[in-house]
Amino acid sequence: MQTLTDEILSQTIRIRPKESHKGTYGRVCLVGGNDHFGGAILMATEASVYSGAGLNTTLTDPSNFVSLHARMPEAMVADFTSQAELTELVAAANTVVIGPGLGTTTQSLHVLQTVFNTVAHNQTLIVDGSAITLVADKSLQLPDAQLIFTPHQMEWQRLSGIKIADQTDEANEKVRRELGGTVVLKSHQTKIYAPNGSYLNTAGTPAQATGGMGDTLAGMIGGFTAQFADQTNAVLAAVYAHSAIADELAEHQYVVLPTQIIHQLPQFMHDHQA
Amino acid sequence: MQTLTDEILSQTIRIRPKESHKGTYGRVCLVGGNDHFGGAILMATEASVYSGAGLNTTLTDPSNFVSLHARMPEAMVADFTSQAELTELVAAANTVVIGPGLGTTTQSLHVLQTVFNTVAHNQTLIVDGSAITLVADKSLQLPDAQLIFTPHQMEWQRLSGIKIADQTDEANEKVRRELGGTVVLKSHQTKIYAPNGSYLNTAGTPAQATGGMGDTLAGMIGGFTAQFADQTNAVLAAVYAHSAIADELAEHQYVVLPTQIIHQLPQFMHDHQA
Amino acid sequence: MQTLTDEILSQTIRIRPKESHKGTYGRVCLVGGNDHFGGAILMATEASVYSGAGLNTTLTDPSNFVSLHARMPEAMVADFTSQAELTELVAAANTVVIGPGLGTTTQSLHVLQTVFNTVAHNQTLIVDGSAITLVADKSLQLPDAQLIFTPHQMEWQRLSGIKIADQTDEANEKVRRELGGTVVLKSHQTKIYAPNGSYLNTAGTPAQATGGMGDTLAGMIGGFTAQFADQTNAVLAAVYAHSAIADELAEHQYVVLPTQIIHQLPQFMHDHQA
Amino acid sequence: MQTLTDEILSQTIRIRPKESHKGTYGRVCLVGGNDHFGGAILMATEASVYSGAGLNTTLTDPSNFVSLHARMPEAMVADFTSQAELTELVAAANTVVIGPGLGTTTQSLHVLQTVFNTVAHNQTLIVDGSAITLVADKSLQLPDAQLIFTPHQMEWQRLSGIKIADQTDEANEKVRRELGGTVVLKSHQTKIYAPNGSYLNTAGTPAQATGGMGDTLAGMIGGFTAQFADQTNAVLAAVYAHSAIADELAEHQYVVLPTQIIHQLPQFMHDHQA
Repeated sequence: MQTLTDEILSQTIRIRPKESHKGTYGRVCLVGGNDHFGGAILMATEASVYSGAGLNTTLTDPSNFVSLHARMPEAMVADFTSQAELTELVAAANTVVIGPGLGTTTQSLHVLQTVFNTVAHNQTLIVDGSAITLVADKSLQLPDAQLIFTPHQMEWQRLSGIKIADQTDEANEKVRRELGGTVVLKSHQTKIYAPNGSYLNTAGTPAQATGGMGDTLAGMIGGFTAQFADQTNAVLAAVYAHSAIADELAEHQYVVLPTQIIHQLPQFMHDHQA
Repeated sequence: MQTLTDEILSQTIRIRPKESHKGTYGRVCLVGGNDHFGGAILMATEASVYSGAGLNTTLTDPSNFVSLHARMPEAMVADFTSQAELTELVAAANTVVIGPGLGTTTQSLHVLQTVFNTVAHNQTLIVDGSAITLVADKSLQLPDAQLIFTPHQMEWQRLSGIKIADQTDEANEKVRRELGGTVVLKSHQTKIYAPNGSYLNTAGTPAQATGGMGDTLAGMIGGFTAQFADQTNAVLAAVYAHSAIADELAEHQYVVLPTQIIHQLPQFMHDHQA
Repeated sequence: MQTLTDEILSQTIRIRPKESHKGTYGRVCLVGGNDHFGGAILMATEASVYSGAGLNTTLTDPSNFVSLHARMPEAMVADFTSQAELTELVAAANTVVIGPGLGTTTQSLHVLQTVFNTVAHNQTLIVDGSAITLVADKSLQLPDAQLIFTPHQMEWQRLSGIKIADQTDEANEKVRRELGGTVVLKSHQTKIYAPNGSYLNTAGTPAQATGGMGDTLAGMIGGFTAQFADQTNAVLAAVYAHSAIADELAEHQYVVLPTQIIHQLPQFMHDHQA
Repeated sequence: MQTLTDEILSQTIRIRPKESHKGTYGRVCLVGGNDHFGGAILMATEASVYSGAGLNTTLTDPSNFVSLHARMPEAMVADFTSQAELTELVAAANTVVIGPGLGTTTQSLHVLQTVFNTVAHNQTLIVDGSAITLVADKSLQLPDAQLIFTPHQMEWQRLSGIKIADQTDEANEKVRRELGGTVVLKSHQTKIYAPNGSYLNTAGTPAQATGGMGDTLAGMIGGFTAQFADQTNAVLAAVYAHSAIADELAEHQYVVLPTQIIHQLPQFMHDHQA
């Protein structure tokens, strides 16, 4: 297991070519936010936008449209209960993030199934939060896409069947191979199990231990995978940046809010591009 | 009566252990905000989030969901008119704050009764604002929980039966013993009557004399009691911090707004942790 | 005609007494904001809150509740189409501001008439914007209250019957005496006709020439008259502060937005209290 | 083809005359923002307000009113589905911006047709985004107004019939003459084809390659043309300022968000006025 350092940032965050346009930096769909957990998809969306993804569309419950626009006019919105909109927008995306605030209702399951039925092999799909719970509880068949799972330990227990106490690297890696893709196992020291090896994130601070951090990380992984070619590096850089920014803020703050991390992204990424 | 100093901060605000997660820092439910006083529950919620509580859910009138998310995506929302949601979420909380913007209608009373019927002995319940008025007016039986009352002088008159002119320490302490729990009696010099003694807060500034300060304090007490083991110290530290931050801001401001105090919390708490 | 200087600030903005509470600093009702001009009443409300008024309630179209709370949880809201709410809240206020974004529909007129029928001799009533137009167009009888009119030149023409070209000090003062109260005649150099004399404001900048400045001034006059005993000085200080803050911002800005002026109020007032 | 420098700023951004009022700085109508693309018209509106236009009204889907007011109380709103409101407000404007987030539905077309039927020879009309697509797809007849088109390369292909690979200056200029007015052809180096010649903008950064930049530019062109007499210079200065601000921000940011550019406008324009 390799420990992440800030080298992963300079290996990943590329100086942007002069001749480029928003299409160069990817199209992200963020799917989630029912009528109770709207904040989760707002944070995921903001994280993707501030990461630099070229185009961001949030598929959510219409009750979240106004709060999203009030915070972030840069994102577009669509109704995730519309099968037609969901299918069209997901099919056109480079990266899809599903799960933040999605919930576990019948409607949530329907949205998730539609996304799974729509994504294709060349698309990156980040499966987060309640989407992981739904996959586990409903034994859903995973789609053929570039899968990235972002469970915390209890969600990983649900998905992998491995109890928290038994979540050894070997056991985790075995299930990852069966699932395919990459697993970001979140805890106070997040581990990333990727096709090319496993990684330990020792950055981060207990000041981050507050609701919304996972939603923010999911959005950042969305933004990074949409922009940067090497998908594993993109995941690793997002995980590391998320913690490293929190570490910087925690030098002056007792608690670090997710939206405060998000707002630091443009400057942090600038200082670590190469 | 002991005068509070900034020692209460370092005695209370603990350096966070490295191995911790959001569950370590408590689950707060904030209940209030009818269709006229939504701002009150927004400020209480923001105060709890910026204090560092791990998970925050706001039970309020659905008309307040959008404004809350627009300001604070870190908080979750639920409908306080749904008996099922209210019961489930309150039962799962460590700390419950009830009262900011709750109002005194039949609906307000129904919400309050449901909370009183739900909370258990090991839960902290902060009774603020119109919840105090309802308890007094309807002679409600208090639940068996760790009670913290946060009346201003007129609300205390209603609750205790002691007229403002007669609110001596002795009389106040006598009623506190009957009520159980802790009383935060707000005035330009707030007094705290706790099971282990009584305390005087001489910090604070007339620049704070503006609507929403009490809602903010209630939310801070919510956030502090959810995180810090000694409940009396948590209350004292919240009261002191609320005034001390205002004092700092008043060095440069004629009026200090509640939300400005809230935004200083992460840095202030950082500087006083031990 | 006396030219205003920053002496009016130190004569008006009093160092707050230590023993005081939000009631000490007045209760302001701001009435306006139909379904098209919600922004106007939002700015007036923010100006009153940031001026330091103790309690602020915005009576407006319910469609403006969410945007107001999203910006300013410190203010309370009520529905100006409810005769009962309007009457009760206006009767309880020290200062009432009516007009920003009120419109000139039948509903607007009804709201205005209710306010006129409710206010009493000891209350300050600021008549702004479309409320002035309605008074002129409908030849409304003015209530017995401490009246402050804040017309721009065209509104003054409507109210006074004096054409803009003929608005001499003598003519203006004559009508002011007939109306009673104070007239703040807004132009690039605002003139104030008060019972004790007339005043010229030479502060201000063309960077301020943008929509919403008048709404902001009306809210500031609301906040100042609610707090400061001498009502004429309160008006003069609000007019001067509004321009002086803009002058400071215009040292670095081509245009100065109303909300930027508002946000400077606490610091500006701090620096000029005495 | 002439390369733009910051000289265009000082030639255009005039020191404001002391005796002026908001009417001096123009009346802008911004038309767009359906129920999915509300963010686009919010950004355009903010750009116009921060540019210093005297009065700004946003004609949009009513679902966007609350988010607009929450961000920007300085702007007024009206319902673009109301033929009466649309006609009255557009007729009263100096500059009309149509297109950001307008969409391409039957409703969008109806709104566009109403605007085309309303504007007159002396009004400036900026045709942006989906309005360009509609003009092309529906072969709409252009109104007799001061036309400014702001297509990106694909939209220009649709409007001009010239494939992207064939968009030479000569071909572009030929179509511009047929259309009348000015064409702002957006790419990583934007070209402006105006009646008096053509211009190249070499300012700008790939950090700007994110959604909403075009909406922001359209709003800035709206604000600049409303204030500055020479309409070609106003367009050139807006294009240059948009990129130059981004260049400054990109010295410290990996990505530059549209709203961040907007917020720099007052200071940037201050530093370049003459």
